Amino acid sequence: MEKIIIDKLNKIFKERLLKAVDERVSYSYDASFGQHIPDLVVQVLSAEEVQKTVEIADEFAIPIYPRGASTSLSGGPLPVHGGIVMDFSQWTQKLEIYPDDLIIKVSPGVKTGDIHRLAEHYNLMYAPDPSSSSICTIGGNLAENAGGPRGVKYGVTKDYVIGLEVVTAAGKLIRTGGSTVKNVTGYDLTKLLIGSEGTLGIITEATLRLIPKPLDTMTAMVIFDDLYTAGKSISKILTAGVRPSKMEILDQNSINKVEDYAELNLPRDAAAIILVEVDGDPEVLPKELAVIKKALEEIGVSNVQVAENKEQEQKLWQVRKLVSPAIVTSGYTKISEDATVPLSKIPDMFKKIDEIKNKYNLNIVVFGHAGDGNLHPTINTNMRDEEEVKRVEFAVEEIFNYAIELGGTLSGEHGIGTMKKAFMLNEVGDDGLDFQKAIKKALDPKNILNPGKIFPEKGEKRLVLRNG
Amino acid sequence: MEKIIIDKLNKIFKERLLKAVDERVSYSYDASFGQHIPDLVVQVLSAEEVQKTVEIADEFAIPIYPRGASTSLSGGPLPVHGGIVMDFSQWTQKLEIYPDDLIIKVSPGVKTGDIHRLAEHYNLMYAPDPSSSSICTIGGNLAENAGGPRGVKYGVTKDYVIGLEVVTAAGKLIRTGGSTVKNVTGYDLTKLLIGSEGTLGIITEATLRLIPKPLDTMTAMVIFDDLYTAGKSISKILTAGVRPSKMEILDQNSINKVEDYAELNLPRDAAAIILVEVDGDPEVLPKELAVIKKALEEIGVSNVQVAENKEQEQKLWQVRKLVSPAIVTSGYTKISEDATVPLSKIPDMFKKIDEIKNKYNLNIVVFGHAGDGNLHPTINTNMRDEEEVKRVEFAVEEIFNYAIELGGTLSGEHGIGTMKKAFMLNEVGDDGLDFQKAIKKALDPKNILNPGKIFPEKGEKRLVLRNG
Repeated sequence: MEKIIIDKLNKIFKERLLKAVDERVSYSYDASFGQHIPDLVVQVLSAEEVQKTVEIADEFAIPIYPRGASTSLSGGPLPVHGGIVMDFSQWTQKLEIYPDDLIIKVSPGVKTGDIHRLAEHYNLMYAPDPSSSSICTIGGNLAENAGGPRGVKYGVTKDYVIGLEVVTAAGKLIRTGGSTVKNVTGYDLTKLLIGSEGTLGIITEATLRLIPKPLDTMTAMVIFDDLYTAGKSISKILTAGVRPSKMEILDQNSINKVEDYAELNLPRDAAAIILVEVDGDPEVLPKELAVIKKALEEIGVSNVQVAENKEQEQKLWQVRKLVSPAIVTSGYTKISEDATVPLSKIPDMFKKIDEIKNKYNLNIVVFGHAGDGNLHPTINTNMRDEEEVKRVEFAVEEIFNYAIELGGTLSGEHGIGTMKKAFMLNEVGDDGLDFQKAIKKALDPKNILNPGKIFPEKGEKRLVLRNG
Repeated sequence: MEKIIIDKLNKIFKERLLKAVDERVSYSYDASFGQHIPDLVVQVLSAEEVQKTVEIADEFAIPIYPRGASTSLSGGPLPVHGGIVMDFSQWTQKLEIYPDDLIIKVSPGVKTGDIHRLAEHYNLMYAPDPSSSSICTIGGNLAENAGGPRGVKYGVTKDYVIGLEVVTAAGKLIRTGGSTVKNVTGYDLTKLLIGSEGTLGIITEATLRLIPKPLDTMTAMVIFDDLYTAGKSISKILTAGVRPSKMEILDQNSINKVEDYAELNLPRDAAAIILVEVDGDPEVLPKELAVIKKALEEIGVSNVQVAENKEQEQKLWQVRKLVSPAIVTSGYTKISEDATVPLSKIPDMFKKIDEIKNKYNLNIVVFGHAGDGNLHPTINTNMRDEEEVKRVEFAVEEIFNYAIELGGTLSGEHGIGTMKKAFMLNEVGDDGLDFQKAIKKALDPKNILNPGKIFPEKGEKRLVLRNG
């Protein structure tokens, strides 16, 4: 990096400009793959600092890579072209609730879990609940449009953001949306920017909407003898007339991984389990679970275990939370996908993943947000085994292509990042990609905001496993 | 219009190309103001026809104005620069439900009410319910991101669209989103296009998501002695722990207009009434209304009348539905605004509107979607009285500016169109407007898609009342 740039940044950030390689290495990875060491890191604490940095980046055409807690599963914050990592994790100062307006205003570094706690203190709820909520930042959630188990009833991050403050690629500070849930004043820049993975603007503040916290929850575990019926049961439950607040599936492989890891007395022989939560008035919840039970009986499923108290309920949700840690500790590298399909196609997707698993002789675990059709086929692989990595790449490609064939999508909630950009064309086509690129080019003509993400670069054809 | 263009369109549309002035006049207005006669009208029935028309418009740089049922309150479909009106109202052929996937696919001319009926036949619900649903088209709802009373709990049109087929300004056919609720594959073009008022692309098909139809509803009418307390009660109800499915307010003026019109035995002396609907399990509904009653008692409001049967309930909602017709029949011209403010600011907004009403000596009726902060101050005026029209213009400007000052927005659900474009700068600022314009320019470089909407043109400073 040129000395003049370092001097300029030094003036703004002083000890919050990180130059030493050992410091920069900490900013070279996320929860996906590849290692890319940035040239510099700045720890931003204000919109003004973001603006000044963008001005410098614009002047010298240097890439900026915004980064929260680096829990991204798609390579979102990876500085693939060097440049400056903009660390938002220290900017936690703003967390203001306006209970009468049902809104919260936050700075980008605030942890999602802290937002949950503050809202709940007022008997309100911030609905999006990515599994990483205890460590991830809201800024990252906004960039990637994070999901979570409650998505089936309550939607995703985008559905709870009504206003943003954003620094544009030209260094201008703009506000999108506002403090009202309804707003049709021109284009919906709020929803365009959320999920744009930091490629169209840098979010410096968000206004989130809250809803009343449901009075109570109840949870049941449904146990299946075959995976196909488990898949079929999802549409069945969702069309029975109740709206589950969570609906998560674990296949046999996931169940056994969790059981190995935590010994929770789970049914090791089951082909799959589905955890269903309903929420609302405590009187109605047993009735709603009865409606679900009846619907399941109609397709021959009768093994439904209802948690009888809060302790049992928490234990059931513990099972879902432990899937990822259980897989991680197995020593191999974990490749988490989130191909998503229409509800009625879930059984077909399960069948296909099973075929792919056998065809390529891979260790594939399937779990995910069943109620959204958002599955997380997760592959454990030894990254040093080049031949196996090749098989993984072919397998993932087949999963993606089949999801698209079924009318589904490459990514339900993790984002495209570096991981899936090679497959964008398959889903959106040349003209669709051109439409997206035209927006990017118009808003970031010098390509300084998180370059190397979302759009495939020349020659990229496969899953990016070995880009480090 | 040049002969070569007419010949080209004639080949495609034959008797569906309307050239006669008496036919074209029918396409010159909507439910807002101004009359603009298009040069030609084409009645489209397929994406291919849309593409071919766009190719011609692109070649000869002619504006295209998409139009549904022309119920727009903001001038959305008005052909302000002549050119071609693209009439979608005949394209009603596609209305396909996939109950297991909880989705419906529609062509743009389908009436919103027909979507409601089809979904309900399967015990499902398409939630957005603009007041014009018996006549408006889904295409218009998509273009304007239509709202409706159920917005307070269920959101607006945008929240129920998961995929679009769109013809771009270059005549390409692209698909955005898909058939899954979750999708983060690149930019969210679906949500960018919805509410973009036909200025970024022409929607030729939509995939809508459905939710289970709530089992039952109950409604109460709350009667207020003063408007300020009515405003305060809105936050109070929404933070009491229940989620009303509708929450509509009518001020004294509205109440009396409806009473004059339909004699429903309404409390003429009340400063305002609020209609609150709760939905869900029939056992819980009385409990939820009791929670609301208790919350209202805490601020000294005790006049709450609960509809005791379906007939009474329907009668209450009839009151809300009759507001617009009651105002229209008064003989004067109706100017409907939809300035929207944060919930806690509703009392201030009511106070201000009252001041403005007195200051300019105008007949202003206020009603609207209280639970969203989405008010519809509506002015009855004699358009032939130039002096009064001027007062209306000043009054509307003050309402807009105050809404923005309170952290609100110019438009909650009607759109900007021609009516409010002069005020865009006040809300989004120069840099915000430039950001929006950059998107427009990138996606429609020749400005052929619904030109003259959203963005202020040179010299436009006031409400467009006399643009005809």
